[in-house]
Amino acid sequence: MGQYTAPLRDMQFVLHELLQVADTLKQLPKHAEIDADIINQVLEEGGKFTSEVLFPLNHSGDREGCHHDQATHAVTTPKGYKEAYRQYIDAGWPALSCDPEYGGQGLPIVLNNSFYEMMNSANQAWTMYPGLSHGAYECLLEHGTPEQKALYLPKLVSGEWTGTMCLTEAHCGTDLGLLRSKAIPNDAQADGSYKITGSKIFISAGEHDVAPNILHLVLARLPDAPQGSKGISLFLVPKFLPNADGTLGVRNPIACGAIEEKMGIHGNATCQMNLDGATGWIIGEPHKGLNAMFVFMNAARLGVGMQGLGLTEVAYQNALVYAKDRIQMRSLSGVKAPDKPADPIIVHPDVRRMLLTAKAYAEGGRAFCSYVALQIDRELNHPDQEVRKEAADQVALLTPIVKAFITDNAWISTSECLQVYGGHGYIAEWGMEQYVRDARINMIYEGTNTIQSLDLLGRKILLDNGAKLRKFGAQVQAFVEANGTDEALSEFITPLADLGDKVTKLTMEIGMKAFQNPDEVGAAAVPYLRVVGHMVYAYFFAQMAKIALEKQGSGDSFYTAKLATARFYFARLLPETAMLIRQARSGSASLMALEADLF
Amino acid sequence: MGQYTAPLRDMQFVLHELLQVADTLKQLPKHAEIDADIINQVLEEGGKFTSEVLFPLNHSGDREGCHHDQATHAVTTPKGYKEAYRQYIDAGWPALSCDPEYGGQGLPIVLNNSFYEMMNSANQAWTMYPGLSHGAYECLLEHGTPEQKALYLPKLVSGEWTGTMCLTEAHCGTDLGLLRSKAIPNDAQADGSYKITGSKIFISAGEHDVAPNILHLVLARLPDAPQGSKGISLFLVPKFLPNADGTLGVRNPIACGAIEEKMGIHGNATCQMNLDGATGWIIGEPHKGLNAMFVFMNAARLGVGMQGLGLTEVAYQNALVYAKDRIQMRSLSGVKAPDKPADPIIVHPDVRRMLLTAKAYAEGGRAFCSYVALQIDRELNHPDQEVRKEAADQVALLTPIVKAFITDNAWISTSECLQVYGGHGYIAEWGMEQYVRDARINMIYEGTNTIQSLDLLGRKILLDNGAKLRKFGAQVQAFVEANGTDEALSEFITPLADLGDKVTKLTMEIGMKAFQNPDEVGAAAVPYLRVVGHMVYAYFFAQMAKIALEKQGSGDSFYTAKLATARFYFARLLPETAMLIRQARSGSASLMALEADLF
Repeated sequence: MGQYTAPLRDMQFVLHELLQVADTLKQLPKHAEIDADIINQVLEEGGKFTSEVLFPLNHSGDREGCHHDQATHAVTTPKGYKEAYRQYIDAGWPALSCDPEYGGQGLPIVLNNSFYEMMNSANQAWTMYPGLSHGAYECLLEHGTPEQKALYLPKLVSGEWTGTMCLTEAHCGTDLGLLRSKAIPNDAQADGSYKITGSKIFISAGEHDVAPNILHLVLARLPDAPQGSKGISLFLVPKFLPNADGTLGVRNPIACGAIEEKMGIHGNATCQMNLDGATGWIIGEPHKGLNAMFVFMNAARLGVGMQGLGLTEVAYQNALVYAKDRIQMRSLSGVKAPDKPADPIIVHPDVRRMLLTAKAYAEGGRAFCSYVALQIDRELNHPDQEVRKEAADQVALLTPIVKAFITDNAWISTSECLQVYGGHGYIAEWGMEQYVRDARINMIYEGTNTIQSLDLLGRKILLDNGAKLRKFGAQVQAFVEANGTDEALSEFITPLADLGDKVTKLTMEIGMKAFQNPDEVGAAAVPYLRVVGHMVYAYFFAQMAKIALEKQGSGDSFYTAKLATARFYFARLLPETAMLIRQARSGSASLMALEADLF
Repeated sequence: MGQYTAPLRDMQFVLHELLQVADTLKQLPKHAEIDADIINQVLEEGGKFTSEVLFPLNHSGDREGCHHDQATHAVTTPKGYKEAYRQYIDAGWPALSCDPEYGGQGLPIVLNNSFYEMMNSANQAWTMYPGLSHGAYECLLEHGTPEQKALYLPKLVSGEWTGTMCLTEAHCGTDLGLLRSKAIPNDAQADGSYKITGSKIFISAGEHDVAPNILHLVLARLPDAPQGSKGISLFLVPKFLPNADGTLGVRNPIACGAIEEKMGIHGNATCQMNLDGATGWIIGEPHKGLNAMFVFMNAARLGVGMQGLGLTEVAYQNALVYAKDRIQMRSLSGVKAPDKPADPIIVHPDVRRMLLTAKAYAEGGRAFCSYVALQIDRELNHPDQEVRKEAADQVALLTPIVKAFITDNAWISTSECLQVYGGHGYIAEWGMEQYVRDARINMIYEGTNTIQSLDLLGRKILLDNGAKLRKFGAQVQAFVEANGTDEALSEFITPLADLGDKVTKLTMEIGMKAFQNPDEVGAAAVPYLRVVGHMVYAYFFAQMAKIALEKQGSGDSFYTAKLATARFYFARLLPETAMLIRQARSGSASLMALEADLF
């Protein structure tokens, strides 16, 4: 059933050598005391927990799935999930990056981020139970009343209760403006509560047995709500209404009507939730529920990127073991293992291509995600408001790229790693096909990757006339100029600079065309996002190559491997931009010409 | 659970308008009487059978899977499979393109090919039961003794018995030279039989309940066999030894030890077959089993391409229905369905991109496969030996492209079609995720797509100094020259001519590099195959566009759609070659630099 070992060395390289996070954290009063030792210690413990507790449940959880009892509406999670969750909260993991005011450990997001990569490598389906709690925590922290925070946040921080986001209804996912769930003021009670009625679908972790209570964050319409997306409010709907002391009170009529049979993430219950006059409390202002929910959504989108990264890493690790072990055919350039009847398949160039694709996407994704997580720490905690704003802009710009680029790359990578196994990759017991199935959802939920690309190109770039992108571009440009005269780096700097220029031109071109025809945005967005994604990865790989070159003499072969991976990235993956730019430039005509009836 | 309707209009366009098959068939004495009416009639009947009988079992067969009884070694196929198989043989479908000498209907391969596309759209897992029989038929027809043919071929042609190919062993799939199954002369019997012992894995349709007997074609080594792939012989090992009159005799000790849990094709039993002194008869010459098996393999590779094509088509049809029906968001270029609360998602450019990707790959694949099938008819039946040789060369060149390019495209297409559904695509009941799971095996079995690419570049192209490719290229060039002055066609001809030049240069470049370092072949092969695949598709789309342009005035909107699809192909899919050529040219250095231990 394979193996998983947290990639501690590469995580430490990214955090300490590439990003030098301790230096950045020193500027943030809350985290000024964090040093490399603390970080490494947490990473090490995280590695143990994820590989020893979560990973052994990954394959069995997939095979067993969740079970729903029609009579009681209860959901049973796979064997071992509940116990693993108990270990998770006993060890204090949910509190890692939460506010000490509510029981958190106050460690930075960038560290929590690495821990989430590990959890997702080890067991994505399981990780979704606590993973959604974290989004609910952030949403309540920002938009909850002091009373709501005091009552609910400690429960989420300790992990005693979990959270969900209840957005989708059968007839609307992307287009939440169409949603129909209703909330009416609960006049019978003088507690400011509402009675909420409606039906939600695709609610991950909507019902389960790993924790005694679940805090549902539910989108619904007030009686006087305007039509469309500006008439949606957000409500907190606990499964059990809490008593004032936090103990469980009355069972609220929000129940799981069914769970879905899915392609993957079988260990997570995807629930149809029926609300039949369930009691809820409004979060934030009436009709501004989508704004409040976006805090959750943004956290969730980064979380989905980490799911993609986690799967890429674990698929790579397993394919690598197989490729070294499996013998088949001789190397075309001469026998490599004369003592064996055939060579290990890692001698074959195309097997290496598949492995290196996953390796490069894992390492590029790790650098990128960690960078974005560090920007969130700056956004939340830097004393200078200007810096916070700048960091927030970067996070806003890069979030859709984290979500879409990393999850698309995970689909590519897990599939390549499956292929390394040949026929065995298709067989469940080898574990590889589960990674592919699990990876597929990440391109869909929390806003499909098309929606991410529209968010990037339409909202984040064109709507502010490219300001955020220019700022990031200036940072890339500064790196190019600082290193442009270094001969040893030119193999990385030249294509990076070239791509930077192309992105600028492409963005302007699409912007001009969009003035004439808004469909040009939709026509270009998906390839455009991948072009920008590659620019970001090229930027990080160039920086990593620079460090690796500097440390080539250190005798640590880690740097040899890093340099080779960067070279592979530039030789084999970056050339995708040649295709993408052509696609993005080809415009909307070839897409829109055909009448719908003639398809 | 979706729908499937055979794409009769497009099949007729390809067969009659694009390929004008009746003209070609007239040159083949066996098929000189075949006209468009006969073809259309068979297509229509095939469409009914596949959509009414096979398609309704596709989803249920996936959910139910096959069951293996440890005690009896019997395999039960999903509900309805057996009855569908009975209808299939009662209607005479297995005999369609078989030799009348053995009970066949003697219709051309090109027609059988279209029928196989339909069967695979409707139910790939089911189709693998009769599909493998066809390969066994061809292998026996070419390499069997007159007695073997007389005894076994009528059973395969009628479909009364099915066939398998037993190649893979646990330690060897790609590298058959390592195989260990043994065959020793059966001295106790004077019937020239052998006793075969060994264990095979991944035997599709190795055991089942749809037919009373199964003819296993088994690779094994004779006692005096040389090592490696030149010491392998092929044996016919029936499940039940037939009596002289063709009735079932003794049960042969070849039994199914287990069936695999797989990612997809759950309706087909993937068997571990144990042979314990099973009686078998040699097919062809001793130690030349791989040669004989290659007849089977080549047929099977084309068959796998048809599986990819079938899945592409059915996924497209369903995604299209959904995209027209599902309303979500408004078109960016203005409201399209003012009477509804949102527009159908087919108004969105990226939804169209996803649909058109599948549509173009289906239509390109259909044209290409039908062309190759027609070449097989010429190879088998043309009176002129020169023509037969030329056709055989084309089939040899194009077979790995059919197998790898079409199945890779099916993976892309089914995944895009799933994405059209958003979250519903991930849910089993909608049926889309099954197409993706089923599609994944096609890139692996009958020689992985990497093996196909090595076969194309190494064996089919470099080994004969590019002669076969040049011949195909000359055909493309002739079309370019004949139409190069047609202004209306220049949008297709110019990029086709350009790509033709690039393929020539790329081939020479790789050939030169391969002299220095054989790993250059392995490093370039996979992107190279896709480049050539695109050249082939561009050639067919240019031809189809030419016809569509000529018939624009006919009032038949089919041609409008065809032209739009061709334009989409050139605008959006062909640009992949810009990436692929860069990847193929990047050489082996970035793949081979890293020592295996440093991965």
